Amino acid sequence: MIARRKDRLETLRREILALHPSLDVVVKAADLSVTANVFGLYEEIKSYPMQTWINNAGFGNYDSVGHQDLGKIRQMLHLNVESLTLLSSLFVRDFKDTEKTQLINVSSCGGYTVVPDAVTYCAAKFYVSAFTEGLSWELKAAHAKMRAKVLAPAATKTEFGKVANDVEEYNYDRFFGTYHTSAQMAAFLLELYDSDKVVGLVDREIFSFRLCEPQFPYAGNSRHNQKI
Amino acid sequence: MIARRKDRLETLRREILALHPSLDVVVKAADLSVTANVFGLYEEIKSYPMQTWINNAGFGNYDSVGHQDLGKIRQMLHLNVESLTLLSSLFVRDFKDTEKTQLINVSSCGGYTVVPDAVTYCAAKFYVSAFTEGLSWELKAAHAKMRAKVLAPAATKTEFGKVANDVEEYNYDRFFGTYHTSAQMAAFLLELYDSDKVVGLVDREIFSFRLCEPQFPYAGNSRHNQKI
Repeated sequence: MIARRKDRLETLRREILALHPSLDVVVKAADLSVTANVFGLYEEIKSYPMQTWINNAGFGNYDSVGHQDLGKIRQMLHLNVESLTLLSSLFVRDFKDTEKTQLINVSSCGGYTVVPDAVTYCAAKFYVSAFTEGLSWELKAAHAKMRAKVLAPAATKTEFGKVANDVEEYNYDRFFGTYHTSAQMAAFLLELYDSDKVVGLVDREIFSFRLCEPQFPYAGNSRHNQKI
Repeated sequence: MIARRKDRLETLRREILALHPSLDVVVKAADLSVTANVFGLYEEIKSYPMQTWINNAGFGNYDSVGHQDLGKIRQMLHLNVESLTLLSSLFVRDFKDTEKTQLINVSSCGGYTVVPDAVTYCAAKFYVSAFTEGLSWELKAAHAKMRAKVLAPAATKTEFGKVANDVEEYNYDRFFGTYHTSAQMAAFLLELYDSDKVVGLVDREIFSFRLCEPQFPYAGNSRHNQKI
């Protein structure tokens, strides 16, 4: 488990061990929005027999393009786009031919539908959806053993709301009304993990979860692809 | 005109002045893949009475996700995603209420359809398409005077092929067969400029150009948007 806050990682580690004492839970504190950290971090952990890699780290931002804080936007792009790409690429490079490996990238329903006042965040999540769907096609075409999958949540009650709005307190009941809990979202992730489908998508209008094939067009066998 | 190579900018400047001697052509040499350059550059030029901003700078990469050169990928993300976002945001901030202003971001048909062996490039162009379409909705909703538009070329005979494949020579006839020239693409850009449509898209199967409305779903008036 990798995240910024060592104390929270240690708390979570103790909670997991209380339920499953035989597990070996390794925690690493790292801020993945600093992309220079990514390569060293991966070197530290790549000798573990990894089977599933989940790129869950990410944050959002609510603001118009003309008003948004560009320092925060850069940090968001480094984390949500660049680090996710580097870690995905490194994991695929080393583990794509290992049995039962999965890469699950957490996108958003905003990575399939653009949402007002969250345009740059949604564009970053379109990146994640397209990258991961494309990778899933690529792995299948190469007869790799790894599978790549996209989880696309809608509103989920976490610290997301506080960070995306730069506020100290955030009330999901007031500002969204309908949302999932993080426990519900973890259960959806496990459904996706267990399935042969590539995308696990929450419908942001009715909050149902469904497993489906890639949503974006793919030019798999077009005669207009580069012929090299 | 902003690009890396001062000598080519000067040559182009002379060519333009030979045709239109009364123009004032300002050139700036800058490598926009170094995102730290963006803010200083924008400060230097923002006092000009800008009317149209075109984010054309960008490069591609052909490789599988597992084999791709991550140094090149980082540089591509910095240029195609981060600098485009920063320059778009700065231009919108200062000029969105100025009459007849346009922001045209150059995406790709690969920003609407994922292409094999160019997954990361396509994902970056999905970002550009979604960001710019979302911005176009946002500007209209705010009754801004600026319009944001997406140009989405298919194969176009430029240095793109050499850079994307890391080769010294690239033969568009051999590797693509069908493609547009940069003069044809410039004419399509002017069609988009003159129109009220948001997207100018080349169909990569039949190489026709069409002007159309945003292609991605937009949750403009969903009751499930954040209520702040």
